[in-house]
Amino acid sequence: MTLSPAPLRLGLAGLGTVGGGLMRLLAANAPLITARAGRPILVTAVSARDRARDRGFSLDHVTWHQNPLDLVTDPEVDLIVELIGGAGNPARALVQAALAARKPVVTANKALLAEHGRSLAALAATHNAPLAYEAAVAGGIPIIKALREGLAGNQLTAISGILNGTCNYILTTMRERGSPFAEILAEAQRLGYAETDPSADIDGLDTAHKLAILAALAFGQPVDLAAVHVEGIRAIDALDIAYATELGYRIKLLGIARLIDGKIEARVHPTMLPTEAPLAMVEGVYNAVLAVGDQVGRVLLEGRGAGAGPTASAVVADLIDIARNRLTPVWGYDALANLTATPPAPIGAHVGPYYLRLMVADQPGVIADITAGLRDNGVSLEAMLQRGRSRNAAVPVVLVTHETPEHAMRAAVSQIQKLPTVLETPTVIRIEPG
Amino acid sequence: MTLSPAPLRLGLAGLGTVGGGLMRLLAANAPLITARAGRPILVTAVSARDRARDRGFSLDHVTWHQNPLDLVTDPEVDLIVELIGGAGNPARALVQAALAARKPVVTANKALLAEHGRSLAALAATHNAPLAYEAAVAGGIPIIKALREGLAGNQLTAISGILNGTCNYILTTMRERGSPFAEILAEAQRLGYAETDPSADIDGLDTAHKLAILAALAFGQPVDLAAVHVEGIRAIDALDIAYATELGYRIKLLGIARLIDGKIEARVHPTMLPTEAPLAMVEGVYNAVLAVGDQVGRVLLEGRGAGAGPTASAVVADLIDIARNRLTPVWGYDALANLTATPPAPIGAHVGPYYLRLMVADQPGVIADITAGLRDNGVSLEAMLQRGRSRNAAVPVVLVTHETPEHAMRAAVSQIQKLPTVLETPTVIRIEPG
Repeated sequence: MTLSPAPLRLGLAGLGTVGGGLMRLLAANAPLITARAGRPILVTAVSARDRARDRGFSLDHVTWHQNPLDLVTDPEVDLIVELIGGAGNPARALVQAALAARKPVVTANKALLAEHGRSLAALAATHNAPLAYEAAVAGGIPIIKALREGLAGNQLTAISGILNGTCNYILTTMRERGSPFAEILAEAQRLGYAETDPSADIDGLDTAHKLAILAALAFGQPVDLAAVHVEGIRAIDALDIAYATELGYRIKLLGIARLIDGKIEARVHPTMLPTEAPLAMVEGVYNAVLAVGDQVGRVLLEGRGAGAGPTASAVVADLIDIARNRLTPVWGYDALANLTATPPAPIGAHVGPYYLRLMVADQPGVIADITAGLRDNGVSLEAMLQRGRSRNAAVPVVLVTHETPEHAMRAAVSQIQKLPTVLETPTVIRIEPG
Repeated sequence: MTLSPAPLRLGLAGLGTVGGGLMRLLAANAPLITARAGRPILVTAVSARDRARDRGFSLDHVTWHQNPLDLVTDPEVDLIVELIGGAGNPARALVQAALAARKPVVTANKALLAEHGRSLAALAATHNAPLAYEAAVAGGIPIIKALREGLAGNQLTAISGILNGTCNYILTTMRERGSPFAEILAEAQRLGYAETDPSADIDGLDTAHKLAILAALAFGQPVDLAAVHVEGIRAIDALDIAYATELGYRIKLLGIARLIDGKIEARVHPTMLPTEAPLAMVEGVYNAVLAVGDQVGRVLLEGRGAGAGPTASAVVADLIDIARNRLTPVWGYDALANLTATPPAPIGAHVGPYYLRLMVADQPGVIADITAGLRDNGVSLEAMLQRGRSRNAAVPVVLVTHETPEHAMRAAVSQIQKLPTVLETPTVIRIEPG
């Protein structure tokens, strides 16, 4: 007996790093993918900007569409793989058109999901078309599947992660070499670890997109990018990294979402973690996600968050799911399910310890003025480091607080930075237990 | 509009730690599970040894069957949850009867899967009945789903894991306290971390069961428990743990399966890992699995490997998959798929560095005799530690080799242990790069 099930025919939009990686992966592991999918998975049509470019693989047996939207109407295409990127068109229009035409969509587009995930999920539900996005968060780590299926019996209470390899590479390398941010950023750009315009990575928006997606899955709530508090890593000085090491911490850009007192706290910011915390040990371009569930306790997943191979691996996992008709609602639960709506918590309500670095004039009374500013706002100190003296230049004073409400910390910093002896904008970094 | 989809009705066999945990989990998270499963999941019938025992939850609305096989014929039961355990009957007969009756089965039974997985998979395929076993390996870590679905586009090349929390607890605590094996084992038994008869855990069989399952999934081969080389942790002395620390290693009981030169190497044994290796940092009752794929690179998953909550969490993940009709062949690929058969590699073909501890009489010429035994078999040394002198008692000599074929190492040890100055059975521990 010979089985000859119908192949799953893909229309692929975008032939950049990930699109090229997908073409190569489907070719390299075809027998294995066919066995796991129960049928062959083939690219029958593509769309990209430049047809002539040599990508190292043949497009001879593939239909070329100059307009990606034509992939949707191509009768030889069963499923759209959207690897164009960006929350706007043509990516958005392509995904909308595909779902409206009842064609399944697999995408790596975190911006699109984070910004338009609600309406796209509604469209997918209306037309009963799968929309899968394992590749949108943490590259090769199967975190979407883990949250949406593997841990689905849990009420998750917290999720935190290193979700941007560019930032983690920069912070790791700054620490290893004691070098300034700008120098390591420039090097990361040369190595291809950072974009020419690095702002989406280093200002935290990319991490916020991914966190918004993870929080929606973890807490069974509609995706809510606007509720995520976002700070990037531009202000992190080599000095802060050195002090962090001295104090027993690592600085990581984390996305953190927690259920606290019936609200969801979601924030992206540089974070000091104890050196022995699991996420503190995740270095270089690696990503990791720590999930906490009421049944399972802590689960950590770690792996490569970007790159052709890892991201294509995630795309293929989605393709195999769809090939086998393993379908899940976009956000993991039925749109009509009466899950309790959980409101967001404002960042001002956050409570935790803080690291505060001030650059001050080395004059009598400086420390008294600073500590008065903290005391006036009810902020108590756990540690203070002051070393080095300079008659002319600013000297650093580092303070670590006990647990403090964010609004109190902000009021204290606001008061302190008005002091004439405080010479630069203070650096404030939240500390997490890990 | 009100949705009222039919509930998924469970027949639950076994009301021990995991069965009780499942009852509590289904009750505690019912709204969330209903939303994620698309329909309610209810236990309608149970079978356990002792009906009268107070388990802390009510069985009033549940049918009691004294014989677990009667769950299969109960018309109010859609799916069998097998939490009896053990490779023999009644667990085996129950799973066979359920599959033959086309009722889906969810089980946490690693022994059953490892020993009878081939025939059960064939039975499941013949009757088109799902057989799911996320809870069989690494408790709450969704590793089955990760390998079978999340990383399904990869040719995996290696998988290694800390798969037995009892052993990891014992080894971790031995190191932290410098205490002997027997003392910590007794304590683990008092704490409930080890069974009254601990042999399945500490002699490595439990880890071998889990490794056989993971290897089958990772490499697309029928499960082959007989091909797994198994050594336990009984012979690990507090002295070895102290030496490991001194040499920059941690000792872990690992299950390791690798594709090497077209063969599958599968082995369970105490392993020295560099302190900074990801698996070396997994402590106490935690489990972890490191998978290496050709596309994704290294992926690590870590979490609780046992206990009511984590294991029930894994069972519910399987239940939700089946409730949503997300089905996967038992070993991840179609039984008829023509994947290339990969033969097992014998342990003698293993190549790696070794740690060797000898207890010797402190006499002139001892070291010369030992090193001659190594030289005669082509084993070269990277390091030797000899300290402490004793006219009467045996003194330890520790040797670390360069990369050595296992058969050469065995020949050398066999020669050395015949020396009259070698007073105890040598301890040999394989070293892995991590």
